[in-house]
Amino acid sequence: MAIKEGIRTGGRSARVQTSIHAAVRDLLQEQERSALSVPMIAARAGVTPSTIYRRWGDLTSLLADAAVERLRPDEPVDCGNLRDDLRTWVEVYLEETNSAPGREMMRDVVASSATLCSGKCLNIVRDQLQIIIDRARERGEHSPSADDLVDAVVAPMVYRILYAESAPSLERVHQLLDRCLS
Amino acid sequence: MAIKEGIRTGGRSARVQTSIHAAVRDLLQEQERSALSVPMIAARAGVTPSTIYRRWGDLTSLLADAAVERLRPDEPVDCGNLRDDLRTWVEVYLEETNSAPGREMMRDVVASSATLCSGKCLNIVRDQLQIIIDRARERGEHSPSADDLVDAVVAPMVYRILYAESAPSLERVHQLLDRCLS
Repeated sequence: MAIKEGIRTGGRSARVQTSIHAAVRDLLQEQERSALSVPMIAARAGVTPSTIYRRWGDLTSLLADAAVERLRPDEPVDCGNLRDDLRTWVEVYLEETNSAPGREMMRDVVASSATLCSGKCLNIVRDQLQIIIDRARERGEHSPSADDLVDAVVAPMVYRILYAESAPSLERVHQLLDRCLS
Repeated sequence: MAIKEGIRTGGRSARVQTSIHAAVRDLLQEQERSALSVPMIAARAGVTPSTIYRRWGDLTSLLADAAVERLRPDEPVDCGNLRDDLRTWVEVYLEETNSAPGREMMRDVVASSATLCSGKCLNIVRDQLQIIIDRARERGEHSPSADDLVDAVVAPMVYRILYAESAPSLERVHQLLDRCLS
C-alpha cells in the first residue's frame, strides 16, 4: 500500500514514508527492537531524524505505524459463501493477532499516543470485512454490518488476547460468529 | 483490597506490596508519570529497588499493577433487576475506562510483559458481573454468563476505546447489552 502510493503519486512525502518503513523493517530483521533508535532509522532511510520526529512524534509511534503497514493483510479468501468466508478470515486473524509479532503490533498501537495509528487497525479490519460483505450481497446473501461483526467477533478476540490469560479457542470464535450470523 | 490483605494476613509480603502501591499512588499525585523511577518508588516505600525488580520485573509492570489496584471498583449498584443493574454497571465502566487514567491503565496493562497483570483486568470485570448475575438468579431472573457479557459488551467497549477514533456511544453500548439479554 505504502509502496504503491509512492510509485503512483510520485509524492516526495509518500516516498519518504516508504523508505522509512523499509528501514524499520530491515533493521528489525538485523537486531532487537529495543536497540532501535530514531537516528539509526533515519540514517538507514537517508533522512534526517527531524523528518521522523515531525511525522511520527516518537519512536513508539513510528514502530506502531510500521507494524500496521507490515501486517496489512491480503485480500480475504473467497469460499463462495458468507459463513465460510468469515470463518476463514477470523481463523487467519486469530492466528496472526495471537502470534508474537501480532501481539507486539497490538501493543505498539495501544502504546502509541499519536492519532496517526489510532483507528488504522480498525479501518483495516473494517475494509477486509466489507470486501466479504459486498461479495455476499452480490450473491444475494444477507449479512450483518462490518461494525456488528467487529463488535461481535473481532473485539472479543483482541480483548482476550490482550487481557485474558490466553487467546479464545477457535471453537469459541466460531460460536461468536454463528451468533452474529443467526 | 491490598490494604485489607495487609491487615488481615499480617504477611510481610502483603505489607510490602501495600506500601509500594501507596508510594506509586502518592508519587503520581506529585509528579508526571514519566518522571517516576524504580529507585524513587523504592525510597518512598522504604524498600530496596531489588525488592521491586524481584516482584514486578520492571517499572511498567509495577505501574500497571498499581493502576489495576487503584481502579478496583466498588460493589455494583443494585437497581432491583438485571437489565438496570447491567446498564448502570456498563455506564460506569465506559466512563471510567474512557477517562484519561482509565486509558492509561489499559495501556499500562497491555504494555506490561509480566504475567502478573495479564488476566487481572478480566478477572475484576468477571467478578463484578458475577455479583450482578448471582443477584439476578436469586430473584429468579435468567441471565447470560459473565463470559458472554464480557464478549458481547465489555470487549467492544475496550476494543473501540483502544483502537477506534473514539469510544462507542452509550446508545451503542446499550444496544449491545440488549442484544446479549434478548
